[in-house]
Amino acid sequence: MKTITEKDLKVFCVSALVQNGMNEQDAAITADVLAGTDALGCFSHGTKNLRMYIEKIKVGALDPKAQPEVVKEGPAFALMDAHDAMGMVASVKGMAKAMDLAKKSGVGFVTMKNSCHFGAAGYYANMAAEQGMVGIAMSNTDPNMAVPGGKSMVVGNSPIAYAAPAKGHDPVMLDIAMSATAALKINQAKIDKKPIPDTWLVDTDGVPTSDPGFYGTGGALQPMGAHKGYGLSILVDILSGLLSGGATSKDIPSWCFELEEKNKASHAFLAFDIGAIQTKDEYENAMDAYIDNIKQSPKAKGSGGIYMPGEIEFSKKKKADKTGIPLTDDVVQSLEQLANSSGLKLNWK
Amino acid sequence: MKTITEKDLKVFCVSALVQNGMNEQDAAITADVLAGTDALGCFSHGTKNLRMYIEKIKVGALDPKAQPEVVKEGPAFALMDAHDAMGMVASVKGMAKAMDLAKKSGVGFVTMKNSCHFGAAGYYANMAAEQGMVGIAMSNTDPNMAVPGGKSMVVGNSPIAYAAPAKGHDPVMLDIAMSATAALKINQAKIDKKPIPDTWLVDTDGVPTSDPGFYGTGGALQPMGAHKGYGLSILVDILSGLLSGGATSKDIPSWCFELEEKNKASHAFLAFDIGAIQTKDEYENAMDAYIDNIKQSPKAKGSGGIYMPGEIEFSKKKKADKTGIPLTDDVVQSLEQLANSSGLKLNWK
Repeated sequence: MKTITEKDLKVFCVSALVQNGMNEQDAAITADVLAGTDALGCFSHGTKNLRMYIEKIKVGALDPKAQPEVVKEGPAFALMDAHDAMGMVASVKGMAKAMDLAKKSGVGFVTMKNSCHFGAAGYYANMAAEQGMVGIAMSNTDPNMAVPGGKSMVVGNSPIAYAAPAKGHDPVMLDIAMSATAALKINQAKIDKKPIPDTWLVDTDGVPTSDPGFYGTGGALQPMGAHKGYGLSILVDILSGLLSGGATSKDIPSWCFELEEKNKASHAFLAFDIGAIQTKDEYENAMDAYIDNIKQSPKAKGSGGIYMPGEIEFSKKKKADKTGIPLTDDVVQSLEQLANSSGLKLNWK
Repeated sequence: MKTITEKDLKVFCVSALVQNGMNEQDAAITADVLAGTDALGCFSHGTKNLRMYIEKIKVGALDPKAQPEVVKEGPAFALMDAHDAMGMVASVKGMAKAMDLAKKSGVGFVTMKNSCHFGAAGYYANMAAEQGMVGIAMSNTDPNMAVPGGKSMVVGNSPIAYAAPAKGHDPVMLDIAMSATAALKINQAKIDKKPIPDTWLVDTDGVPTSDPGFYGTGGALQPMGAHKGYGLSILVDILSGLLSGGATSKDIPSWCFELEEKNKASHAFLAFDIGAIQTKDEYENAMDAYIDNIKQSPKAKGSGGIYMPGEIEFSKKKKADKTGIPLTDDVVQSLEQLANSSGLKLNWK
């Protein structure tokens, strides 16, 4: 573990990206997303992956100069083509466009094709919450889940995030994948040689297994709630890939394991302008009361507390703002590798 | 089990509703939703409940003459007040409004307050699919789920449905509640005195239990995927209750167990006009290929087949169109009770 301020982490990210052909503005956007994700404690989706994104630029599978383009537009929607841009750049501009549309029409929707792995969906949803809107962000992914009755990896565990502001509380923010659990947890169990719940993975026959060894060797993730996560994964493909005319899960390579391929991920962004639809004060007061009702409800036996979606992440962020981001060893290792190869310096605390 | 044609079932529903003060048009809407839901084989949410809705009219907790009203409107949204109308009437008009907005702006959103139990969310989503749109429908419910770390019933297992059309296939249609399973299944296990998976219910201490006896006696449903279903349940409250200024789960009585209370459920409807956003042909071809890819993927050992969301329901509907709807005993009993008390006749096949 090493600690760094969010500001210094961003400076490093910007330098590394500019060194690889990205302009300052887009590099700053990417740095904001990645370091901001680390600040929330979501280390699997933050700056750890910068090195891989830069590798992807180097092999020509990600265009650091590409600008997402609005291909078609109506009063409440835009169809965008990311032209193989950095997923964070494409997604920040996608959500910004959805918010612009929402300012004019109350609701804004962007469906986007030809993007790349966008990291943590919650960042984009939260952009809306910070501007007094409800935001929803989603992306399809390469196939990694089995479908009910099927075996092998057929649909993606496509993430969906939303965020909604409150007044006396942090925004409510949920960022979830459609699989029963993160592949990361199964990988860890595999390393630790520990059994997993039989609702996480299927084996090569498509049968639920408690052996994490089937991950990456012909098994597949199980959707959360069986047909529920399966169906919601398809919804993400519809709103992102099928409405944009972009790729859907079956045509999306793994952004990291097939690094030399263009990722072609499709995204979708929705923004609801609270002040247009509802009286802002009335909404905020009702939201605060709603949160209080949940927070003050009776605790379970042995409970560690009741948390709103996003509450733990925002409290980590507040701590990181004061004392720096405590990056885990895998993140530190990845960043130092990038620093060594690029000649750039990391300003550890 | 008794069989009836969908047409004859609707005739009965319309007569019963008109007898209780509803106009012909609204009675026909309600009958379409309820009998259409039975035709899909979703008997828990169809005409079985008509008797209870009529009881609710009789005690003054549901207004058969109420007309949902647009309170506020923008290019892509409408805030509607259902004025305690029949949930089916309010919801069909709500989704129709969302589709009108989508025709003008590409995307339409309706948030609705003061409605009542709307039955099966899938019906409204499918209205959009039938008109070449992607539809999403949701409703909040009375609290029936525990929250992670909590005990007792705090948030609702609010249903979310979506539907999207294809060309060579039926629409894809998913209709799910945010609980791990339906309360109905737990009730059945209680009757059968059989244990349930410990991911379905918590006991009075908020601890996962395999004893279905805790349902209705201080236990609470578990959300699907723990924090995932919890977070999505809150999203439904945000888009329906908090954006409309209506009631959220904590202020919603059970529509059937607290029959004499106004239900005050809030709904939300989203429509995406495929032809406005994307070339219709391109979408349809891609959707057909997408479905084929899933349907033709390798089957699991012992698999009963791979089905798209909604596929089983639509095949039941096609069979019912030919040979009538095979209503289960509980539905038959409820309908005959209503027939006896109202003097109306059921035209069984």
